[in-house]
Amino acid sequence: MSRQPSGRRADYRHFHAITTRWMDNDVFRHVNNVNYFSFFDTAVTYYEMTEAGIDLLDGPLHCVVAEVACRYHSSVAFPDRIVVGLRIAQIGRSSIRYEIAVFRNDDDIAAAEGHFVHVLVDRDGQRPQPIPDIMREKLQQIAV
Amino acid sequence: MSRQPSGRRADYRHFHAITTRWMDNDVFRHVNNVNYFSFFDTAVTYYEMTEAGIDLLDGPLHCVVAEVACRYHSSVAFPDRIVVGLRIAQIGRSSIRYEIAVFRNDDDIAAAEGHFVHVLVDRDGQRPQPIPDIMREKLQQIAV
Amino acid sequence: MSRQPSGRRADYRHFHAITTRWMDNDVFRHVNNVNYFSFFDTAVTYYEMTEAGIDLLDGPLHCVVAEVACRYHSSVAFPDRIVVGLRIAQIGRSSIRYEIAVFRNDDDIAAAEGHFVHVLVDRDGQRPQPIPDIMREKLQQIAV
Amino acid sequence: MSRQPSGRRADYRHFHAITTRWMDNDVFRHVNNVNYFSFFDTAVTYYEMTEAGIDLLDGPLHCVVAEVACRYHSSVAFPDRIVVGLRIAQIGRSSIRYEIAVFRNDDDIAAAEGHFVHVLVDRDGQRPQPIPDIMREKLQQIAV
Repeated sequence: MSRQPSGRRADYRHFHAITTRWMDNDVFRHVNNVNYFSFFDTAVTYYEMTEAGIDLLDGPLHCVVAEVACRYHSSVAFPDRIVVGLRIAQIGRSSIRYEIAVFRNDDDIAAAEGHFVHVLVDRDGQRPQPIPDIMREKLQQIAV
Repeated sequence: MSRQPSGRRADYRHFHAITTRWMDNDVFRHVNNVNYFSFFDTAVTYYEMTEAGIDLLDGPLHCVVAEVACRYHSSVAFPDRIVVGLRIAQIGRSSIRYEIAVFRNDDDIAAAEGHFVHVLVDRDGQRPQPIPDIMREKLQQIAV
Repeated sequence: MSRQPSGRRADYRHFHAITTRWMDNDVFRHVNNVNYFSFFDTAVTYYEMTEAGIDLLDGPLHCVVAEVACRYHSSVAFPDRIVVGLRIAQIGRSSIRYEIAVFRNDDDIAAAEGHFVHVLVDRDGQRPQPIPDIMREKLQQIAV
Repeated sequence: MSRQPSGRRADYRHFHAITTRWMDNDVFRHVNNVNYFSFFDTAVTYYEMTEAGIDLLDGPLHCVVAEVACRYHSSVAFPDRIVVGLRIAQIGRSSIRYEIAVFRNDDDIAAAEGHFVHVLVDRDGQRPQPIPDIMREKLQQIAV
C-alpha cells in the first residue's frame, strides 16, 4: 500500500499551519493516526469559513463529512510543526472532494496524504443542496 | 459516494463497545468525524493486544498504521453508545487489512464503515516484519 | 501536594462508566492528564441531561464551566475501564459545585479526584441565571 | 468564583503559541473546557523539553502531573489563536508549580488561568527525585 509517490508542496494550492500538542503523541512517541484527521478537518473547515464564504455556524447551508481517508508515509511528533496542503479534485452538484497532505516542519515531501469529501446540506433538513455559484467560484480557486 | 449498501452486525466478526464523551460532539451536535478514527484505532488495538497476542508495548514487534478510511452514513451523538464491528479482509506478509463498522446503540445498520491497515514492524528498525504463524492463526479467526 | 486521603466509592453518590481509548495513553503509556477532564465533563453533563432535567441543547438555560481541578493519585491506562463518581458539594444561586473521582476498573480507592463548577446561564445573554426549583431539587439528590 | 482579577501578559514570563482546531469547539461553539488543559500540558512540556533541559523521552528522569486546575474567564473559539503564558510560582525538592494563562488572539487579559504541578520522578521506579541543580537554575529563569 502507499505505493504511489508522495506528494510535494507544489502539488497543493492552499496551506494551513497547525501546531502539534503534547498529547497528540501516543505510546509510540509520534502523533497518533487519529490526529491527522483533525488536521484535515481543521484545514478544510478554515478554508471554507474564511475563503469560500460558507457561514458554517449561522448560514442556511453547512457541510457534513461523507468520506475521509489518509495514507501515512512517515511519522510526525510533537513538537513538530504541521503544514496542511489542500487542493480540490472535484466539485460535484453538492459535494467537494478535497485532496490533502500533511507536511512536517519544512519538509517538501508529504508525511501523509488523503482525501476528505464534504457535502453541502441545509441546516434544517440535512439534505444535500446544490453548491451556490458564488461558492463554486471560490472553490475553483484551489481546484486542480 | 457511499453508494454501497451499509453493513449490518452479521457482516462483522468481533465487537468492541465504546462510550461516547461530551466533547466528541462538535458544533453540529453530533460526534465529529475525527473521533470515529479513535473508535477504529481503539477496537483494532484492543483486539491485537487481547486476542491476537501482540505485545504492542514491550514485545519486539508492534504495528504502525499505513492507511485508514471511513465513510459516514448517518450520525451518532453523545450520549449514544457505540459498538465497533471488526473483520479482517486480508492478511499479507506484514500487513493486516481490517474492515470496520460503527454501530449506534442497538442499530443493526452501520452508521459508518471503513478500513484500517496495520503493518507489523520491529520496534528498533521500524521495518515491516513477517507476521508470525501464531499471530496469523489468531487473526484468521475474524478473517472473511 | 495531594496529601488528603483518597476518596472511596462510598464517598460518591452517582456513577458513570467510561471506556478508555487507545489514544488516551500518552508517551508514558498511561492516560494523559488532559483526558481526566473529559471524564469529568462527560459524567457531569450526562447527569445534568438525564437526571437533572437540563435541556442543554435546546432549552433556554444551559451550563458553562467556571472552574475545574484534578489531583492525580495513581495512573490509569488503556484498556482500563473508568467509573466516574459524582457528588454535589454546593448549590449556589446559579452555580453547582461537583466533586468528582475517577476509579480504575473495580478499585475502591480513587485514582484521581477533583471538582467542577458549572454556572447556569441563559442561552442568549450568557449571564448567570437562578437555578429553577425543580432543577435544584433534582441536584439535591446527589448533594452531600 | 473567579473573583480575582484576570492576569495580563506582563504577569507571565514565557509564551507558547498554539493553533486551535475545529474539533476543539463543542456544541456551544467555543473551545471545550477540556482542551485548555491540553494547552497547559503542551506549553509546560515544551518549556521543559527545550528550555529546562529535561529529556522527557529518554533521560533517567521525567515528570508526572500531580495537580492541575483552570478558572475560565471568557471564551475562545476556533479559529482563534492561543498564546499560553507560563511562570513558575514554586520549585520544591521534586515538584514544580507552574501558573498558566490562556490568551486569545492579541488580548492582553487572560481568557483562563490556572496552575499545573509537575513532579520529577525516575523512569524506573516512578518515585519523586530531587530536581538537579542545573535544571533548577533553568527553571528559575521564569520563576516569580
